[in-house]
Amino acid sequence: MLPDRGYVMPQPETLAPAGAFSDVERAAVYRAIHTRRDVRSQFLPDPIAEEVLARLLLAAHHAPSVGFMQPWNFIVIRSARVKAGVRAAFARANDEAAAMFPDERRALYSALKLEGIVEAPINLCITCDRSRGGEVVLGRTHNRDMDLYSSVCAVQNLWLAARAEGIGVGWVSIFHEADIRGILGLPEGVVPVAYLCLGRVAELHSEPELQVRGWRQRLNLEDLVFDDKWGRKANTQDEPAG
Amino acid sequence: MLPDRGYVMPQPETLAPAGAFSDVERAAVYRAIHTRRDVRSQFLPDPIAEEVLARLLLAAHHAPSVGFMQPWNFIVIRSARVKAGVRAAFARANDEAAAMFPDERRALYSALKLEGIVEAPINLCITCDRSRGGEVVLGRTHNRDMDLYSSVCAVQNLWLAARAEGIGVGWVSIFHEADIRGILGLPEGVVPVAYLCLGRVAELHSEPELQVRGWRQRLNLEDLVFDDKWGRKANTQDEPAG
Repeated sequence: MLPDRGYVMPQPETLAPAGAFSDVERAAVYRAIHTRRDVRSQFLPDPIAEEVLARLLLAAHHAPSVGFMQPWNFIVIRSARVKAGVRAAFARANDEAAAMFPDERRALYSALKLEGIVEAPINLCITCDRSRGGEVVLGRTHNRDMDLYSSVCAVQNLWLAARAEGIGVGWVSIFHEADIRGILGLPEGVVPVAYLCLGRVAELHSEPELQVRGWRQRLNLEDLVFDDKWGRKANTQDEPAG
Repeated sequence: MLPDRGYVMPQPETLAPAGAFSDVERAAVYRAIHTRRDVRSQFLPDPIAEEVLARLLLAAHHAPSVGFMQPWNFIVIRSARVKAGVRAAFARANDEAAAMFPDERRALYSALKLEGIVEAPINLCITCDRSRGGEVVLGRTHNRDMDLYSSVCAVQNLWLAARAEGIGVGWVSIFHEADIRGILGLPEGVVPVAYLCLGRVAELHSEPELQVRGWRQRLNLEDLVFDDKWGRKANTQDEPAG
């Protein structure tokens, strides 16, 4: 596999035509993007078919990764005992979290349902093995976090594929990392990037739930776009509408 | 907007039916996922239409974000001067990177084209404003990096939408962060998560370019999937095929 020093670059014989999708296909991709939700309450108890789960994991595995490092692993959790342990770790952290909010936000915070760990038929931890690919990884020489970012791309691929499959996904992040590491037996150097709850859904919110609940509103896209430099709005009239 | 302490949770009136997509739609989502590539060499000089760019940015803006924080900004770079500065920053870092690889890899590394900064009609920096949403952000109380991960989700949304639009995307990560900060004038607390090159493409590699070039092969998905705990392969016979 390893080329010699005087390596001659192989011709890119794998180039294939690749233009825009048809209107119907393109609309489907945007439908997945725009109707994807973070699900906490809508999980049905129905099992997820093995072939559906296999397609979701394959989608995650086809995420971009720095230096083709593929730093991810997928821990598929079906055990009620493991879920209960994770749920307890969440509850402890969430009590701490509630205490961090100012009085006027705390009641709403505590009323929000922020996870569906036990109800979701499958939990999935997507990790990042920071040592995969050896000491020096192409593209990670100047930004050590690129491997974590690769694992996040795998999360988002899976999330969009899940939307198309009628599977809801919720990302639970309110944990002490040490608790998750212990419960799942992660070795040193393996980071739990995302703890996800997966289950079939028949309904989803048409807007993000935190907006529906009055927690926070969607920002105006126009305000977030700059031209050539931070803060510059030179082409304001040409800017894409939010 | 802010509810009082004795807040009564509004009924989720925005729930709408949301099952699986049709076979055609689902296939389109998987087509985007499986045929997306990191593009360095296939950019056409054709401009990207404003309405296409607007759709891509809107897709990015609909990524999941911790606590609906929406920490991203989008710096759209068309200036040849800015691109030239970024290209020079890349060249400096890439020379350093090449020197980090062992002798037997260095010739191949140096022969790889790893960016299309100047050829791509549009460069796009997606940032993360770490202070957006205030001191305490829902879901970020125990993992401070969740905001960075949100910006990465925006990158992946845009990347898949771009594939459907016939736009290639390349993520360039070989920079000293300070160089990019300086060139783009990023304020303190704003992190350049991804520097992307965007342009129309007529062809793409059918496999990741680093595989085509003999740098690294795709791992076997089966080897990356565990059951309930790191390293456990209890249900081997039921596992999804790679």
